[in-house]
Amino acid sequence: MQVQDDRILVADRLKSIAPFRVMELMKRAAQLEAEGHRVVHFEVGEPDFNTAEPIVEAGRRALLEGHTKYTHALGTEALREALSKDYRERLGVAIPAERIVVTAGASGGLLLLSALLIDSGDGLLITDPGYPCNAAFPRIVGGAAQPVALRAEAGYLPQVDDLAGAWRPNTAGLLLASPANPTGAVMDGARLAEVAEFVHGAGGFFILDEIYQGLTYGPPPTAGTGLQADAGLIVLNSFSKYFGMTGWRLGWVVVPEALVAPIERLAQNLFISPSSVAQQAALAAFSPQAMAIHEARRQHFDARRRQLLGGLEALGFRAAAPADGAFYLYMDVSSSGLDSYDFCWRLINEFQVAATPGIDFGEREAHRFVRFAYTTDDESIGLGLERIGRALEAWDSVGGQA
Amino acid sequence: MQVQDDRILVADRLKSIAPFRVMELMKRAAQLEAEGHRVVHFEVGEPDFNTAEPIVEAGRRALLEGHTKYTHALGTEALREALSKDYRERLGVAIPAERIVVTAGASGGLLLLSALLIDSGDGLLITDPGYPCNAAFPRIVGGAAQPVALRAEAGYLPQVDDLAGAWRPNTAGLLLASPANPTGAVMDGARLAEVAEFVHGAGGFFILDEIYQGLTYGPPPTAGTGLQADAGLIVLNSFSKYFGMTGWRLGWVVVPEALVAPIERLAQNLFISPSSVAQQAALAAFSPQAMAIHEARRQHFDARRRQLLGGLEALGFRAAAPADGAFYLYMDVSSSGLDSYDFCWRLINEFQVAATPGIDFGEREAHRFVRFAYTTDDESIGLGLERIGRALEAWDSVGGQA
Repeated sequence: MQVQDDRILVADRLKSIAPFRVMELMKRAAQLEAEGHRVVHFEVGEPDFNTAEPIVEAGRRALLEGHTKYTHALGTEALREALSKDYRERLGVAIPAERIVVTAGASGGLLLLSALLIDSGDGLLITDPGYPCNAAFPRIVGGAAQPVALRAEAGYLPQVDDLAGAWRPNTAGLLLASPANPTGAVMDGARLAEVAEFVHGAGGFFILDEIYQGLTYGPPPTAGTGLQADAGLIVLNSFSKYFGMTGWRLGWVVVPEALVAPIERLAQNLFISPSSVAQQAALAAFSPQAMAIHEARRQHFDARRRQLLGGLEALGFRAAAPADGAFYLYMDVSSSGLDSYDFCWRLINEFQVAATPGIDFGEREAHRFVRFAYTTDDESIGLGLERIGRALEAWDSVGGQA
Repeated sequence: MQVQDDRILVADRLKSIAPFRVMELMKRAAQLEAEGHRVVHFEVGEPDFNTAEPIVEAGRRALLEGHTKYTHALGTEALREALSKDYRERLGVAIPAERIVVTAGASGGLLLLSALLIDSGDGLLITDPGYPCNAAFPRIVGGAAQPVALRAEAGYLPQVDDLAGAWRPNTAGLLLASPANPTGAVMDGARLAEVAEFVHGAGGFFILDEIYQGLTYGPPPTAGTGLQADAGLIVLNSFSKYFGMTGWRLGWVVVPEALVAPIERLAQNLFISPSSVAQQAALAAFSPQAMAIHEARRQHFDARRRQLLGGLEALGFRAAAPADGAFYLYMDVSSSGLDSYDFCWRLINEFQVAATPGIDFGEREAHRFVRFAYTTDDESIGLGLERIGRALEAWDSVGGQA
């Protein structure tokens, strides 16, 4: 940091933290809406449903009862116990409450884990494509992201060979997501165990991002937690997606017992505590009433997934992966004859359909791919598909793009 | 980070992030309470009042209305405008909403500012004594805290000479709090302008921590914002203290216009957004009804301050500073004949009174000082004073400590 000509200069790391490309596109979408156009939104990374009523009601009650103060830095005992119970009863793994750390969203969790595990100069393996913000966390603590290119022929699932090839002497550990963003790919227990064994052998840590846990549409084995495959994993999770609590900013991490005391020191210093009202409300997320709503929403997502995937495939696009989880499809749009970034801009400008270009998720064949989120209603999905169909016809007829 | 003998080792920075000493003392207090003892709490750094009813009611309404989703990364337009209006109408400074960034508590704000301004290897000047967590933030981003020892003879207020003496070639900037924790000291506009001029000349940035803004008990000139003295300051603030919203985790920073775009990129990556329900509720913090409650509470704090300060002075303790703000007294307890750390432990163990030893706030004469927070009711303050009086008699009579 320096002041030059009366301007404060920002830290060097800002050079490597780019704005998301989709933000400009979303501004354009908002502009079009302000002009009276109806925009179809396939770019949004959060459920369109509001938080389920039993959780909202619990939040309202919590406020009335005065839950407006700091809590323990690692979260309330009640919520940590509730999470432990959910792991035991619904997911079939014994995780003591002491190993569960409640955080300010999964973002807060990933910051704590980065500060806890990544030394200055360390590398963190992340996937390309992957969640756009993953690279920022190691950078903040003086480390670096080391992207591993996922391969189409492997269904965009991480291969031990690829991980081994990308592992460097300064690599401290690995961050993987399952279900994954942007591909929706889900890793099964066998693959997770294989990766865990490799990481263990390499002397690193393995953070498994399970923020889309519960939002899976495949056979039962993919519907659980990686902790079933390896109880020693570090798990990152969130109340945002399956439990529909994005705006409340609440997540959790599961860490080995030896890491609880140091992560507590970090949490005290960096966050003081997670939100008290969100924690109190989240207790209701596990009630039978709320779980029934979450499950109904999951089925709703599944129906939309089939509708959108079927429609896009009928238009000649191909999914990168089986897309058995999350609420995303990562589609190869190269049959349109357009680079995916141009595709997205022409789609919003000419047909008022917003989607996220691959470049926001990495460099691996990003120019071919677009992420479509099925976080909008069935009717909008139908309209969006119709508009994309018309776009392809128009672009083809004006000649030579395809 | 390395795995050794199946144990994941934590990052080196953990060595320099100590647990707060008061945590052990608070555990002891909780244990005593579980055994049926009544403990007097002078150690708590948050208001004992719940959030004011108009804010709670606005939070309940926000939940009912479905404010449960992500907001803009820099906060809602409505809250940024409300803060701008409050600066203009109540504090007499014109700060456009665009320069106000809503954060996940002041903690979230300080993290963003550290990531924004501090390069790896940079130093950040902080005060000793000061808020215990200040040192952790530069460390997280690869920098270092550079403590400036405050001097008793200057009322524990920062002197330009002291700052100049502590400024190193790698010093990037300065973080000061007014009102200050643990001393309660308030800097006036003239001193702030003087410090700002020095920092500007040294080519650094100046972050002014105003999280206790509004909680001042001196003459009017000390009751405003440092932005009155220098509109170019970077200001850190919070809804936790004056507005009584600790558990909601909501704060804000004011930055120069040139820093808005880069801090937005960081906020998108590291936080996604601040809590939606907290932001919606905070809009009600500026209503006449809520402001009347805040002002009544400020007067209440002032009455307690006089009671506690008078009582402790009568017992022979001396305040480090005039203590015109926040809700802390930083008292020299050396007349007790005990080191302040021993003093606190004997006080909780033998007389069930909890207070925070100076060692949690730095090294500067820490063994002489204890922080007493007046975040407990008048009757408890009276009981606490009586117990401390009995402690001093007992310790004196058992001989030779004084």
